[in-house]
Amino acid sequence: MSAASKDSPTAILLVSCPDQPGIVSTISTYLFENKGNIVDIDQHVDQEAGAFFMRVEWEIDSFGIPRDEIGAAIEPFAEKFQMDWELYFTDIVPRVALFVTKENHCFYDLLSRHESGELRMEIPLIVSNRENLQPVAKRFNIPFHHIPITSETKAIREQEEIDLLRENGIDLVVLARYMQILSPKMTEAFPNQIINIHHSFLPAFPGARPYHSAYKRGVKLVGATSHYVTEDLDEGPIIAQGVTEVSHRDSVHDFIRKGRALEQTVLSRAVWLHLKRRTLVHENRTIVFS
Amino acid sequence: MSAASKDSPTAILLVSCPDQPGIVSTISTYLFENKGNIVDIDQHVDQEAGAFFMRVEWEIDSFGIPRDEIGAAIEPFAEKFQMDWELYFTDIVPRVALFVTKENHCFYDLLSRHESGELRMEIPLIVSNRENLQPVAKRFNIPFHHIPITSETKAIREQEEIDLLRENGIDLVVLARYMQILSPKMTEAFPNQIINIHHSFLPAFPGARPYHSAYKRGVKLVGATSHYVTEDLDEGPIIAQGVTEVSHRDSVHDFIRKGRALEQTVLSRAVWLHLKRRTLVHENRTIVFS
Amino acid sequence: MSAASKDSPTAILLVSCPDQPGIVSTISTYLFENKGNIVDIDQHVDQEAGAFFMRVEWEIDSFGIPRDEIGAAIEPFAEKFQMDWELYFTDIVPRVALFVTKENHCFYDLLSRHESGELRMEIPLIVSNRENLQPVAKRFNIPFHHIPITSETKAIREQEEIDLLRENGIDLVVLARYMQILSPKMTEAFPNQIINIHHSFLPAFPGARPYHSAYKRGVKLVGATSHYVTEDLDEGPIIAQGVTEVSHRDSVHDFIRKGRALEQTVLSRAVWLHLKRRTLVHENRTIVFS
Amino acid sequence: MSAASKDSPTAILLVSCPDQPGIVSTISTYLFENKGNIVDIDQHVDQEAGAFFMRVEWEIDSFGIPRDEIGAAIEPFAEKFQMDWELYFTDIVPRVALFVTKENHCFYDLLSRHESGELRMEIPLIVSNRENLQPVAKRFNIPFHHIPITSETKAIREQEEIDLLRENGIDLVVLARYMQILSPKMTEAFPNQIINIHHSFLPAFPGARPYHSAYKRGVKLVGATSHYVTEDLDEGPIIAQGVTEVSHRDSVHDFIRKGRALEQTVLSRAVWLHLKRRTLVHENRTIVFS
Repeated sequence: MSAASKDSPTAILLVSCPDQPGIVSTISTYLFENKGNIVDIDQHVDQEAGAFFMRVEWEIDSFGIPRDEIGAAIEPFAEKFQMDWELYFTDIVPRVALFVTKENHCFYDLLSRHESGELRMEIPLIVSNRENLQPVAKRFNIPFHHIPITSETKAIREQEEIDLLRENGIDLVVLARYMQILSPKMTEAFPNQIINIHHSFLPAFPGARPYHSAYKRGVKLVGATSHYVTEDLDEGPIIAQGVTEVSHRDSVHDFIRKGRALEQTVLSRAVWLHLKRRTLVHENRTIVFS
Repeated sequence: MSAASKDSPTAILLVSCPDQPGIVSTISTYLFENKGNIVDIDQHVDQEAGAFFMRVEWEIDSFGIPRDEIGAAIEPFAEKFQMDWELYFTDIVPRVALFVTKENHCFYDLLSRHESGELRMEIPLIVSNRENLQPVAKRFNIPFHHIPITSETKAIREQEEIDLLRENGIDLVVLARYMQILSPKMTEAFPNQIINIHHSFLPAFPGARPYHSAYKRGVKLVGATSHYVTEDLDEGPIIAQGVTEVSHRDSVHDFIRKGRALEQTVLSRAVWLHLKRRTLVHENRTIVFS
Repeated sequence: MSAASKDSPTAILLVSCPDQPGIVSTISTYLFENKGNIVDIDQHVDQEAGAFFMRVEWEIDSFGIPRDEIGAAIEPFAEKFQMDWELYFTDIVPRVALFVTKENHCFYDLLSRHESGELRMEIPLIVSNRENLQPVAKRFNIPFHHIPITSETKAIREQEEIDLLRENGIDLVVLARYMQILSPKMTEAFPNQIINIHHSFLPAFPGARPYHSAYKRGVKLVGATSHYVTEDLDEGPIIAQGVTEVSHRDSVHDFIRKGRALEQTVLSRAVWLHLKRRTLVHENRTIVFS
Repeated sequence: MSAASKDSPTAILLVSCPDQPGIVSTISTYLFENKGNIVDIDQHVDQEAGAFFMRVEWEIDSFGIPRDEIGAAIEPFAEKFQMDWELYFTDIVPRVALFVTKENHCFYDLLSRHESGELRMEIPLIVSNRENLQPVAKRFNIPFHHIPITSETKAIREQEEIDLLRENGIDLVVLARYMQILSPKMTEAFPNQIINIHHSFLPAFPGARPYHSAYKRGVKLVGATSHYVTEDLDEGPIIAQGVTEVSHRDSVHDFIRKGRALEQTVLSRAVWLHLKRRTLVHENRTIVFS
């Protein structure tokens, strides 16, 4: 390895395969022999599952293999080791759609981190089932799509949304307190590409009104959970979680207030990890290379 | 108020009643007029439930009413305000029974805090359904009662335990990783007097093997919960909770290891709060005056 | 006590005085006798300093004493107990000036919590020594005063700022990552009315570039501290603090990134506490009634 | 890689060197070619310092190179890459000396984790400058050396201690709230082999009575720091840190009480990391492979 020239673009390879000897040796030697200056490498063996995971990042400008030939070059290893792999280039900026409803805190937090450059992404569009946050979208000059959904219109509206996301080349959907359950059609269209923030420490208090349930149960900590969305509500792979202290002095409204700071922190962390290609999903759990 | 002479004994009054005007005024004036030097006073109104709670602590040596007449003196207020109340004197040291099985960490932690004086209690006896920790009890010169329990003997054995606790004047039972479910007979015999440590962030992962479930779910934090034991397993009023970070790198064994420090910290905190008479239970939730 | 009618205005009395018997009794009886429906009451005795502190909040509409006579009614007690006291009414909304420089995260966080109603305040103006965040102020339609400061102009510029704050009836100044040290003239003009966020766990790493110092020292947690600003840089009374984990994997830039979420959370919490009149300062420490 | 047979012994290689291409490739290929079944591999590049660090663990029983020849086999790489390296075998159990004074909580915590098998070490001896904890040592049947130290006797006594540690083949000294400053002679004799727990969040409140200083400063969190001991008091490389919330309600004694749970947790974590050979020191900072 050696230090990357600042801001020079890198390639990121994410690998999952059955654990077996020789994988690290093979890949690191391949990169070394092709002048791939490794900037970061991390791997993980899930001993119980017998599975191997790796994330390796190297400078692409000085690499000996042209970008469009890397895939073909990897194929022989991939076959040998039965690898699933994904390849990303950091100068191709992910395109992200934000879904919102009424709560503004996660929305503003993502927009401000986008503006400051912390979250490297493009936001071509915002979708909402309500009109409340349209003025915020306008302030940031981002097209706002108001797509109200009722049980009757759900199938049609979701198809519209899928079409919209496809047309705009969206890589990632962030549900920033979007209060509408997605159908399997939607979740299957974007596997491990939809991130939600749930306002509880899952698996405690799934579903609606978790702060009310937490208050009723008398917990001493409230939590927030960011996860990839799957067909099963609030059951998808967890990316990040956080908690904050509450006491008997806190009303439900205090739970909600304290939870807001937590939700935005946890969601922004999860989005950052995804955009940096630091997450891998394996059997409903995440490997987070951080 | 004025500062308590160090170590001078105090009286502690815990009050629960319907919220109504005049309670603080009445009680504080009563204490003031009888030269009750208030050391600490704290109250809480549960707006939603319309309930009032108070903990007041005052020096007893200089108080104008003899100890055995305080109850009678309180009665008129109690009637007027429909109060439930408890009265304690800090020079009467609580008598505590520890229940253990195989895990030693919570056990040692309680014993060391007892030895250092942090936990002001007497420990007349230890109960276990296994023999593993008998040597530890012996080291500390505390009688160890080995009471194995099977489904056939459960009713009889629990009655033996209740008798033993009664004979020894036990005020509090601490389940320090005691791996045996208590029957309603036992929990009803000691209402809000049995404290358990559950090795998860309740209500997530109740029941057996919570770390295994947490691992399987892929959570990013593991927790521990200390609560009063009620008839409903892992559903009693929560006194204290804590969490610690885990990652994909942690195996179930790492979850268990990281959880240990958490369990002992959370349990010792809950026991300290109880011994200081800082807890009140109302409708399956605790008020913790801390 | 009894539950407040939702949103009905309340009075808040904050009291500091030497600890002595009879204070709670006197004040609670006074309120009770004048039909002051207490919504919340909390007090604290600093045993070491022999000092007593109280915060009491009661419904004002049904109170037996007109607003403008409460001060006079309190005076006799105040004299008797040598009280310092402050009286607030919750229907008089505090007027807050935000001071910013280049970093946007605390700024957006305060604006979004203001917009959602969590932070109940008016923001008549924003002050900055740089122009970077003018567009943000514009988006929110808040007058932006660009007041650049050099060592030569500092005295004059600060006087301009003080005049501006006075003209606008500002009750609280929030330094939302404002990168300019205030002179004693300014801090004395607004005692306990200027809140700063410092990007370290004070008293560790005071002064400039704390994340760089933290990185160099190899800490495993980074922190943020919100405090009232006094003449002594980073030495004022602490209102709130938080920390987050870092590791050897984190560069200084990661420290800064992780710190952002912390800074905005800690600052917003401190501002909320101040606006709710839940803070009292005594000998460079805060009592936080929360 | 492939899963280790449970409990089969492993070799652990820790490497530090200037960052350069080919290191991972070279070492992983060497292990692969010699049938070294890698159980865990982790590395880190400090971009700023241009330094590379690696920890690799592999099964030793099936490895193609005999134990006593591994060092010689590594030498050529070590020379090529200018490596510092350390090699450990997990079936050689570290020998640890505990130094204590009066406080028992860290002491008991280490002993209980030793007894449960969590901390895999031998404890041939305990050293103390006071006699208070001799009974505890006796309970656990560990030789207790009472070595009182005054300014006059310090040089002689420390030499006795060093001799004692040498004679007993001690690998690691743990200062479990040992209240005596070590001289450079001692710290140089055991570089990165002495772990201390300091009862503050360093670099805040170094030196004596940190809880008193923290109380006086009015912090809202108290901390604990475990670090390797160097010549400079409380300035050594930090291994682990933790914090816990405090408020104005907490006296100095409460700070001390809350700190205890923190100190034992943080110290035990640091000792565990060291015993697992998961720590490396570079320019007064630690790399912690966890």
